Amino acid sequence: MSEYSSKLLETTVNELARLPGIGKKTALRLALHILREDAVFATNLGNAVIRMREEIVFCKKCNNISDADLCVICANPRRDENTLCVVEDTRDVLAIENTAQFNGLYHVLGGIINPIEGVGPNDVHISHLVQRVNSEEIHEVILALPATVEGDTTNFYIYKLLQLFEIKITTIARGVAVGNELEYTDEITLGRSILNRLPFEGVAK
Amino acid sequence: MSEYSSKLLETTVNELARLPGIGKKTALRLALHILREDAVFATNLGNAVIRMREEIVFCKKCNNISDADLCVICANPRRDENTLCVVEDTRDVLAIENTAQFNGLYHVLGGIINPIEGVGPNDVHISHLVQRVNSEEIHEVILALPATVEGDTTNFYIYKLLQLFEIKITTIARGVAVGNELEYTDEITLGRSILNRLPFEGVAK
Repeated sequence: MSEYSSKLLETTVNELARLPGIGKKTALRLALHILREDAVFATNLGNAVIRMREEIVFCKKCNNISDADLCVICANPRRDENTLCVVEDTRDVLAIENTAQFNGLYHVLGGIINPIEGVGPNDVHISHLVQRVNSEEIHEVILALPATVEGDTTNFYIYKLLQLFEIKITTIARGVAVGNELEYTDEITLGRSILNRLPFEGVAK
Repeated sequence: MSEYSSKLLETTVNELARLPGIGKKTALRLALHILREDAVFATNLGNAVIRMREEIVFCKKCNNISDADLCVICANPRRDENTLCVVEDTRDVLAIENTAQFNGLYHVLGGIINPIEGVGPNDVHISHLVQRVNSEEIHEVILALPATVEGDTTNFYIYKLLQLFEIKITTIARGVAVGNELEYTDEITLGRSILNRLPFEGVAK
């Protein structure tokens, strides 16, 4: 006999429990909540998840999550095309946009170099970044990766590659506490760390 | 401009954030996880939620969540039909089943009396319980509601109605700490509280 009184419930609990940070008990609580709500909620939630995964694309220019070939930021003619901010993922784009301190374009790596988890330089969009620096009119690249060992490794790897070009390479100021993720930093600290960005010379100061 | 770089992402985040205990940041983390996984995960998750909400039914006998008119417990001929265990919701059925100390049938109220939240006796399946005691061959009703003020109120309300019948009314032993929910109690404590159930005399001992 199944642990649950319904196969339908069991399937939903198992699927929800595959999400990060959601165990079986939380999944059951969420499933029961969905059952108590109007049917339209379940339909909207289910369809939103399916449609998003099927239809979402990545911006051809910056790799950010997008609904079209170019994301809204890259498509905006009022953004400064000469300054690129390199970030780990779309959450960091959101975090920096919320500070209203940056008017350039982004380059979303889609991850950072992490040898322990088997993520190498070719698993993230670094060669695409080099290609952009090579072909676009870029004056400055701001490295805005997490203040972790993996972030530092990725910073250094990118720095080595971009050194060959005549551009300014900067990192956001370490107002961000070491070991913390960008997205959980308050807007003022994060905003200041962009304003006070420093020349990158192989190691973060 | 939308806060997110994609309307599809925004819709999914908003829908996920309507689930209890899930804020905007967690919802975004979940949505990005879904985007990183294979498309089949999003499809399975989305369809599981929609199908569950559309096709699930409640057992005609005990009101438990079910795939058919009768749930697997009520349909099992080896369960003791003379003993009814009254619980708040399907999570409590799961918790009691996991103790393997109870072989009777359940009656799922689908909530407990809570005047502050506007839940009255007619909002939960109490009259259906009285009807069952009246028409089925029931010798004992075990009240297994949470050890809270609302649980006590509901116990007392049910006790008053069932007093009229010649049946034994018991409550699970208060091994469960006052103020705690059944589903978070360890199996041994919960199992013992069923074995040591006491006659109900209007107030829990």
